[in-house]
This record gives sequence, C-alpha cells and structure tokens, in this order.
Amino acid sequence: MKTARYLSLFFLLYFLCIQLNAQNKIVVFQTDFGLKDGAVSAMKGVAMSVSPDLKLFDLTHEIPAYNIWEAAYRLQQTIPYWPAGTVFVSVVDPGVGSARKSVVLKTKSGHFIVTPDNGTLTLIAQSEGIEAIREIDETKNRRPGSAESYTFHGRDVYAYTGARLAAGVIPFENVGPALPGKIITLDYQQPVFENNIIRGNVPVLDIQYGNIWTNIDKKTFAKLALNNGDSLHVSIYHNKQKIYDGIMPYVTTFSTVAAGKPLCYLNSLLNVSFALNKANFSEQHKVYSGADWSVEIRKYK
Amino acid sequence: MKTARYLSLFFLLYFLCIQLNAQNKIVVFQTDFGLKDGAVSAMKGVAMSVSPDLKLFDLTHEIPAYNIWEAAYRLQQTIPYWPAGTVFVSVVDPGVGSARKSVVLKTKSGHFIVTPDNGTLTLIAQSEGIEAIREIDETKNRRPGSAESYTFHGRDVYAYTGARLAAGVIPFENVGPALPGKIITLDYQQPVFENNIIRGNVPVLDIQYGNIWTNIDKKTFAKLALNNGDSLHVSIYHNKQKIYDGIMPYVTTFSTVAAGKPLCYLNSLLNVSFALNKANFSEQHKVYSGADWSVEIRKYK
Amino acid sequence: MKTARYLSLFFLLYFLCIQLNAQNKIVVFQTDFGLKDGAVSAMKGVAMSVSPDLKLFDLTHEIPAYNIWEAAYRLQQTIPYWPAGTVFVSVVDPGVGSARKSVVLKTKSGHFIVTPDNGTLTLIAQSEGIEAIREIDETKNRRPGSAESYTFHGRDVYAYTGARLAAGVIPFENVGPALPGKIITLDYQQPVFENNIIRGNVPVLDIQYGNIWTNIDKKTFAKLALNNGDSLHVSIYHNKQKIYDGIMPYVTTFSTVAAGKPLCYLNSLLNVSFALNKANFSEQHKVYSGADWSVEIRKYK
Repeated sequence: MKTARYLSLFFLLYFLCIQLNAQNKIVVFQTDFGLKDGAVSAMKGVAMSVSPDLKLFDLTHEIPAYNIWEAAYRLQQTIPYWPAGTVFVSVVDPGVGSARKSVVLKTKSGHFIVTPDNGTLTLIAQSEGIEAIREIDETKNRRPGSAESYTFHGRDVYAYTGARLAAGVIPFENVGPALPGKIITLDYQQPVFENNIIRGNVPVLDIQYGNIWTNIDKKTFAKLALNNGDSLHVSIYHNKQKIYDGIMPYVTTFSTVAAGKPLCYLNSLLNVSFALNKANFSEQHKVYSGADWSVEIRKYK
Repeated sequence: MKTARYLSLFFLLYFLCIQLNAQNKIVVFQTDFGLKDGAVSAMKGVAMSVSPDLKLFDLTHEIPAYNIWEAAYRLQQTIPYWPAGTVFVSVVDPGVGSARKSVVLKTKSGHFIVTPDNGTLTLIAQSEGIEAIREIDETKNRRPGSAESYTFHGRDVYAYTGARLAAGVIPFENVGPALPGKIITLDYQQPVFENNIIRGNVPVLDIQYGNIWTNIDKKTFAKLALNNGDSLHVSIYHNKQKIYDGIMPYVTTFSTVAAGKPLCYLNSLLNVSFALNKANFSEQHKVYSGADWSVEIRKYK
Repeated sequence: MKTARYLSLFFLLYFLCIQLNAQNKIVVFQTDFGLKDGAVSAMKGVAMSVSPDLKLFDLTHEIPAYNIWEAAYRLQQTIPYWPAGTVFVSVVDPGVGSARKSVVLKTKSGHFIVTPDNGTLTLIAQSEGIEAIREIDETKNRRPGSAESYTFHGRDVYAYTGARLAAGVIPFENVGPALPGKIITLDYQQPVFENNIIRGNVPVLDIQYGNIWTNIDKKTFAKLALNNGDSLHVSIYHNKQKIYDGIMPYVTTFSTVAAGKPLCYLNSLLNVSFALNKANFSEQHKVYSGADWSVEIRKYK
C-alpha cells in the first residue's frame, strides 16, 4: 500500500520530468535579411526573451531581396520534414508598412506559419491545406516598448508572436481574429500534359549546383511512359523566348552520363529536374527560375 | 499531515525540475571568421565541452576582416534584444598576439561581452553603460592543453571563458582582476544640430538592401520639425568630398514613393536612414559606411 | 528511518532529472549544399522529428561543390574540439546513387562520422584512429516513406541515421554490418624533411583572411632549428610550376611585420602557415589549396 503510494508519486514526478523535457517548442526562421548584420540575431534574442526553452533554427536567410515567390517555394520544400507543431516565421516583406495583413496560417498538417500575407503562403496552402488563418492582433501581439518602431515587423511582431505561440504563452486562438480561409496567392503555370507534351515552370534552381528544378510531379511525368535511359527533348523558355533546346536521357544516377553532359532526373521532391553531371546547367545555359520561366518536355524517338 | 509532507516533497522536486530546465545559459558568437571553414564550429565545440546545457547562437560571422568598428556597431544593434545574463563572445582581433587586453565587460543592462579590448566595446559601453570590466586571467581561463597555440584566442580563451561564465562554472569575479572602468574607444562623429543643419555619420549599411543608416537619432532629427511627407536636402560626404546630393521626402512607408526613388525614414533602431524604394542606394550612389563617412541634412523648402 | 527513505527517493529523482538533462545528444552537420535553399533545414527537420531533445549544430555548408578533400580537412580540423559522443553528419557526395557505401565511422576518440565512404574519412581516420566502421543498412535506417526518393541521401539516410544514433534510438551496432577497418582514402603529399629542405602540401586556405595553411607540423618544422625572427626561403608550386618565391621571417605575432609584408607562423593547429599582415596572401600571389599544391621551405642565411 505504502509502496504503491511511493510508486505512484515516483511515476507522477517521472512523467512530469519527461514532459518538461519533451515539449517541442521549435521555431524556424526564414528571411531575406542575409546574415551580415544583426537583424536575424535580434529576432532570435526576442524569441529567447519570450522563453529560453525554445529551440531556434533557420530555414534560410538568403532569399533574394523582396522575392516572395522564392520564400513561398522554400516553405513548401521544407515544412513537410519538420514535426507537426513547429512554428515557421517567414519575413520577406516588400510591402512593410502598407496594407498587407500579418497572419498566422495553421496547415492541415499541424504546422504554423507566421508571415505577411503577401503571397508567401501560395504554395504551402496548396500542398498542405489550410486548417485555419488568423490575423495578428498587434495591439496584443507586439513586443512591449516597440510601438514607435514601424519598420521592423520581423522582430517586433513576427518573431515575438511566433515565439509566444511556440512556447505556449498564447494558444493559436489568441493570435487575433479568424480570417475566412483565403490568402493572397501568386500566379504561376501549373504542370499540364497535352498532345504528348508536358508543360510546366521552373519555380527554383538547386542553386548550389545549378540544377533546374521544375514543378512537374512524378505522376504527370509518368504520362510520357518513359523507361530509365529513354531520351527526352527538352525546351526551356523565358517568357515566350526559347533559351535552351536539347536532348538528354532520363536517368536515376548522375554518373550514368559523362561529366558535363545533360540529364533529366527526379529530384528529392520527386519533381522533374535537369542537370549537367558535375557541372552547372544554369550558368552554362543562362537558365534561371521564377514565374516567367517555363519548360516543354516530349519523348525523343 | 502526511499529505502535507508529500505535497512539500512534490513541490520541492517540481521546482527542482523547473529550475534545471529554466536556466538561461545563452552564448552568442560574433567574429570575422566567415562560415567557410571550421573555426566557428571549433569554438562551439569548446563551449559544448564546457557544458552541453549551453544554448549557442550567432550574431554574425561576416564582419569584414579586421573591421573593429563594424563589430562594435553590430553589438550595439543587437544586444538590447537578448535577455539579461546573455554572454556575447566577439572576436574581431587584428592585434592578436600583441599587447591588447582580453576582457569581459558587464553592462548595466546585465549583458556580458567577452572580447579583445581593441575598440569593440566603444558603442555598447556608451549605450548600455559599464557595470564592471575584468581582464581575463589566462593562467586560469584558458582551454586545458592549449598553451602551445598562440594564434587562436577566439577558441582557446574567448569561447572557453564565455562558455564557463554562461554555464556558471565560474562567477564573473573569477574571470580575472577588475580593471578601472575605462575601455579602448574608436573616434567617430557624434550627431549635431547647428544652424538648421544636422550632421552625423554613416556607421553601417543595411547591407542586404543597400540602405544608408546614420547615427542621427529620432530626438536630434525632431529639431528639424518635419511632418510626414516633407522634403529634405541630403548631402553625403566621404572624408570632405561630396559623394551624393539630393532631395527626398521623409516618409514612414517605403511604398509611398515610386520604385527606384529615394526616401528618408527612421529605421528599426529609430535612426535616420536613406533608401531607394525596391533598389540599392549604396550600390547606385557609391555610398558606404565607416568613421570617414558623414551626412548633412536640412529642410528643403 | 522514514527520513532516510525520503532522502533516497529524493536523490533517486534528483539524479533522474539530472540524467535527463545531462545527455549529450549533439549532431554536427557538414555539406556542400550552401544555405540558400531548404536542404540543410530539411535535414534538421528530419533530425528533430527523430528526437526534439537533440542539439543541432553546423560545421560548414560552404564546402565547394563535390570537394571531398576539403570535407575531409574540415572534419579533421574541427572534430577534436567537440566532446566524445558527438555525431557528425558529412554529406559531400558527388557519387550519390553510385556504388559508394554509406558508413558510420567510430573514431578511437569516441566521435562518430556518418558519411558516404568516398575519401571524406581520409584525414580523420589518420589523426584520430579507427575504432570501428559499419555500413548503413538502408533497409532499417532510412526515413520512413522515403524509399521512392533516390537523390537526397543526406536527408533520408545520413541525417536520419545520425539523429537516431545521437538520440540513442539505435546503438552503434544497429547501424548495419561491421566492415573491415579500411576506408577509401585520397592521395596527398606527406610532409618530409630532406637535405635541409622541408616539403609539404597546402591542404586548405584560411579562406577568410587568405592565409596559406600547410600540412607541415611543428615537429617536422623544428628540424630547421629556427629561432623566432629567423628568415625563411619559401617556394610554392602548383603541380611542378613555381607560383611564389620569397623570403619571410618566422614570427609568433602578425604585428611584428609591417602591414602587407609576408610572414611565417604556426597556425591554431600548430601547422606551418604563411600570411601577409592585414592583407590576403592567396589573392595577391594566386596561391590556392588542394592535393596539387606543394611548398618547399629552407632556412635563409
């Protein structure tokens, strides 16, 4: 009886300890600030001031200045690999001070994104689905003493609100009023299969290696009914102007082709991509990414 | 009675757990080492060897090589946003191996900065105030086994001492002997208002966007008695040579002016700054930062 | 008696709490991915999904693309400063998809390196010694649901396995089958002393400052029997072609020589190095690093 009481006390305390350690409390930051000044560090200082138990990470801070499209793409590329409950703070905000809303999106996958609603949520909302959106009520969710500073929302509103949400200081409901489930979205060409041609766009480069990543998924690509090693005719356009035209095999291993030769492969997101083995496709052929870049792929006989 | 005893035991253990988790133990690193080699990682490895409970962050490692002025500026810009008790380790040390002292400054705000005393403390000492300074006693505060290595103080003395201080292995008093409250300071032009002209300098650029940040604070700026939208005549000098001369409005929102047009605004530190909306002021007008750059601002009628 | 029982319970729980907090659980990542996209962040997301108690750090992600030699060098330079038990995940993998094995090396110093066995382990195996090597069994150690993705081993195999090992989800023995203690190694010139000349190679630059680091250790260097301030005749070759030839003093402090002048010193790894005081030796003299760069040093009378 006494032993039972001791044991129950023991387990109560044991699980208390476990629980204290097991909280997730993860915040991941993305900006176009770069890492040369103190802006990102100030955001993290604000977060650690909210709670020193938070775990802070970076997605990237090298989004090209004002490039909302790339911010959207990086979120879609990365969020699925983080545990549910993770809070992302994304600040690429060319309209700071204008009428764009500050929001928190909760995806159906249970991730949170704190961001200006300027198109940044375009792709993640499509791929993970919208569970709920709330507008940040800045009268409640703003770093104390920051009311005079109107140009660094990243630190005073977004980092502060993201940290409070991740630390459990406020529940999602206290972010601010619920919005109808609509967000600002950016236009871009969807992948299509028509007359034995697949069209799509180049949302982003695999920048370190200069590989060309398209938005053409494995399922759409399968409509060409290719076998490993089959040849493709690939054309790449900037607006309507043809920039690249070539023949390349579809392979699963870069080293199948000689150094410097082109190849088509499925990247780590299982999207159609083009590369030169051990060389830089983008630099060599002046192919870049964005909504105004498109591709055409057909089987080469 | 028995219940009371259980409860008191429970709370004792509860607060013990809390306390074990709640310790701050934050170290923030700043260097001019860059992130291409293993130097920063070696510093963090030394810190984690002191205590795996420490939480390690970065201010920046992209300080231009040997640029003490910029190191000083980044500390002043960032430290106020971190909780009291945070330990900063700043290593920009062109005089490594020479007679400069290794010190730890405790500010009146309760932050600690571990650094060579070579001017790095100029600005933070002015803005946060000096609570105490101690010289690092390297006979006691030096990584064991490192005595033969005389060129990487950042790892063997600064990271090691900062980590021990943050982890509570040593109290501040055991850093080494107290110094008189004087530090090495760098010269720079203070902001002044005279004959309806404000003069100041350009301590730093908002490098990612190419905006020009001055050291002219909101209070000094208010002496021009401007309203939002009023025009300013701005001149920028390198040494005594005029590099830029132009008219721009004082606004609170970048998007008030057309893309590419100049504007004057208060930055996130509430200092007077100049920008081109969605363009790079610094690159376009060849304006840079440092003690030898100065500005003149007057009201334009 | 009762007090003793309480006390024992107290200490049991106390050490339980301590132990929960005291686990090391450190993972350090190195890649050639850069930080501009989401690849590194996805790896960290996978690790945090394995266990939110892990502590994640970076060695560098700026290894030049496909440069296995530099990956090997950065590991050797950095690993000794991290506590035993730390898990390094190094992904520089030009042969991804080819026959190279995925392995985990345990060094005699108690560090773990998760990497493709493509030469990355050349230097750390020499300096720290091989305790054991196991090949990663991808049927067991691969992120669930990742079987279709064959091009991002860094995320799906290396980060996942490194995180599971560091978190204690699997012991080292469960990585996969033990391999004979042999690894793939890269060729490079060892330091030698012969006819009063020391020869060696330039494994790497101190890239931020442009200093030239050789693989000539202090002990080999001592065979020239130099005193501080003595002059050296230094020649540097790319393949067999002489690129630099000059006289410089051996000093312990950069500021001993005038700004812009050359000097020879022992770097933080206690290897012979060359620098220009407050200038960039590499850029000025077009001297770079790699297996094909060598140096000759002799005493200058």
